[in-house]
Amino acid sequence: MNYQKYISEKTQYYQLTQPFYLQSGEVILNAEVAYRTWGKLNASGDNAVLICHALTGSADADDWWEPLFGAGRVFDPETDFILCSNVLGSCYGTTGAISTNPHTGMAYAAKFPRITIQDMVHLQAVLVNALKIRRLKLVIGGSLGGMQVLEWALLYPELVEAIAPIAVSGKHSAWCIGLSEAQRQAIYTDPNWQEGNYSPDKQPTQGLSTARMMAMITYRSWSNFETRFGREIQGEEPEEPYAIANYLQHQGQKLFERFDANTYITLTHAMDSHNLAGNRGNYTQVLRSIQQLTLVVGIDSDILYPPHEQKELASLIPHAQLAWLESPHGHDAFLMDMETLNDLVLTFRSQLYSTVLS
Amino acid sequence: MNYQKYISEKTQYYQLTQPFYLQSGEVILNAEVAYRTWGKLNASGDNAVLICHALTGSADADDWWEPLFGAGRVFDPETDFILCSNVLGSCYGTTGAISTNPHTGMAYAAKFPRITIQDMVHLQAVLVNALKIRRLKLVIGGSLGGMQVLEWALLYPELVEAIAPIAVSGKHSAWCIGLSEAQRQAIYTDPNWQEGNYSPDKQPTQGLSTARMMAMITYRSWSNFETRFGREIQGEEPEEPYAIANYLQHQGQKLFERFDANTYITLTHAMDSHNLAGNRGNYTQVLRSIQQLTLVVGIDSDILYPPHEQKELASLIPHAQLAWLESPHGHDAFLMDMETLNDLVLTFRSQLYSTVLS
Repeated sequence: MNYQKYISEKTQYYQLTQPFYLQSGEVILNAEVAYRTWGKLNASGDNAVLICHALTGSADADDWWEPLFGAGRVFDPETDFILCSNVLGSCYGTTGAISTNPHTGMAYAAKFPRITIQDMVHLQAVLVNALKIRRLKLVIGGSLGGMQVLEWALLYPELVEAIAPIAVSGKHSAWCIGLSEAQRQAIYTDPNWQEGNYSPDKQPTQGLSTARMMAMITYRSWSNFETRFGREIQGEEPEEPYAIANYLQHQGQKLFERFDANTYITLTHAMDSHNLAGNRGNYTQVLRSIQQLTLVVGIDSDILYPPHEQKELASLIPHAQLAWLESPHGHDAFLMDMETLNDLVLTFRSQLYSTVLS
Repeated sequence: MNYQKYISEKTQYYQLTQPFYLQSGEVILNAEVAYRTWGKLNASGDNAVLICHALTGSADADDWWEPLFGAGRVFDPETDFILCSNVLGSCYGTTGAISTNPHTGMAYAAKFPRITIQDMVHLQAVLVNALKIRRLKLVIGGSLGGMQVLEWALLYPELVEAIAPIAVSGKHSAWCIGLSEAQRQAIYTDPNWQEGNYSPDKQPTQGLSTARMMAMITYRSWSNFETRFGREIQGEEPEEPYAIANYLQHQGQKLFERFDANTYITLTHAMDSHNLAGNRGNYTQVLRSIQQLTLVVGIDSDILYPPHEQKELASLIPHAQLAWLESPHGHDAFLMDMETLNDLVLTFRSQLYSTVLS
């Protein structure tokens, strides 16, 4: 599949000159990072804002978060130097399962190593350093992006001024791990899966599609589906599928046309590994050690990362405030109710400005 | 697979003497109903209680609802004649996809017709009539069982004195249909599926297992999984699966050892067809026409049939009261918190007795 066509022509690539060591101890040679920037870095290198994307996202934040970009909005290229990079393990330009393994000259495929959220952040940090960014005014992201945001605060406290983790928890719950595992099993069931050693022209599309259908349900809500589809029948025959079934199948198809099964496995495993306390000790104390000004955004209808998880984050992180993105749409609200999200984050950013002035 | 070993030896079978017509217009010949009874029917035939089972249940209600049985409990064989039959389309004794199609001499398999909740109830009614039951003091069931309960009230008002629909809605939501469809797609992805024409020794076990994993997550709750499993690792290696993943895979395996994929497809399609207004007109008016004394039981942590669905039922059914099974466990609470459920239903039944006396 040609993933290149889903990557903006404006994407830049940074080639690492050193081996990149993973948390597991494994090493990736010739690692490359795909990234986009908007605006200009100032002379002191302290006007940067970092955007972290979610599971199937890319560096093209001006595409999937478009309404947050513009003059006077959260991401204003007139004042900020905005950066978004494709995460380690993804298929949109940064080294991942579809990249060539220099040891074999072939794609990593199923042999791409297990990675963690910390690995993703460390790779982003290499890029941040290479771009001569001295200060990140804000690190922001939702879902998998929010996991990176929290790790940024802990791994690079001297670089990060403020964070905005959205629709996320401090550690992946059993609930989320279970959902990841069921989705991976749907991929493993596909006869084309072949333990991950599928050929590009015979991919486990049906398995990946089923995984996406399951995931899409958890990204939305009872209310979102009922309002849009209810019990509507798509066709004229009583045996025709319901509109909601059709919609989910369409979403599944859209994903397998633009994504890769090994990549899906890699990234969901990374999400499952998310645990701020993982290699740091006591969970409560770790959250209490976060020093940045923090905007925790929760979505009231989120069943994947339910509200009590953001309440926990905001209650433990010392300089945190909690904002609710009130929405009937579920987890995906951070990609749907973007005007509201823009307002919430803009308010937070204006407070940061006041804090700096005071 | 030998489904017989999952059926109690005490199970009785009723063979229909007439063709059984489905709502679709299709006809089933030589239909058979597997059922269990407890206690004795009195001379006037008016001490019967009917139990309706859920998706993968059987007529063995004293097994899956054991704590509700006994002297002074909801199902007391000393006073009541208790009946539970395996639903049409299931694989535990009643005619379904694994039964022999008299037209071909082979199992129906993928050719078993689409059925509805009304079909299930009509078949139960044939049995009720054959057993000379004149009055059902109570029709009770959860989930798919609750759908049958509601249909009983509307299809046989003269037979049914009271109903207790549990953890259910008056029509299957887009949310539930979407979840059903994703689960069916997991089965279709299995190379052994073969459009439903799999051989008994090569069943789509992995697909059915994945479907069950997905379903099991929706039957439980964030809280249930977090308390039981959290981020616990099952093995000693960091690549070993999490305990929750292991648990779900085990649940998947347990189901494919005792259930049939075509049956799963048949019954989830039937659940999706659930709509009290389907062939009756205005939804609100249909619910308002239910005349029985009604106990609607909702589970506060149910994400599959969320609380507002039971509130709707109780607000529209004229003689309804709403009781909450407060539980951290989710939809499955009606099969887990059975002492509490027993108390709720027992209280309702004692009121029925008072109503009759007054």
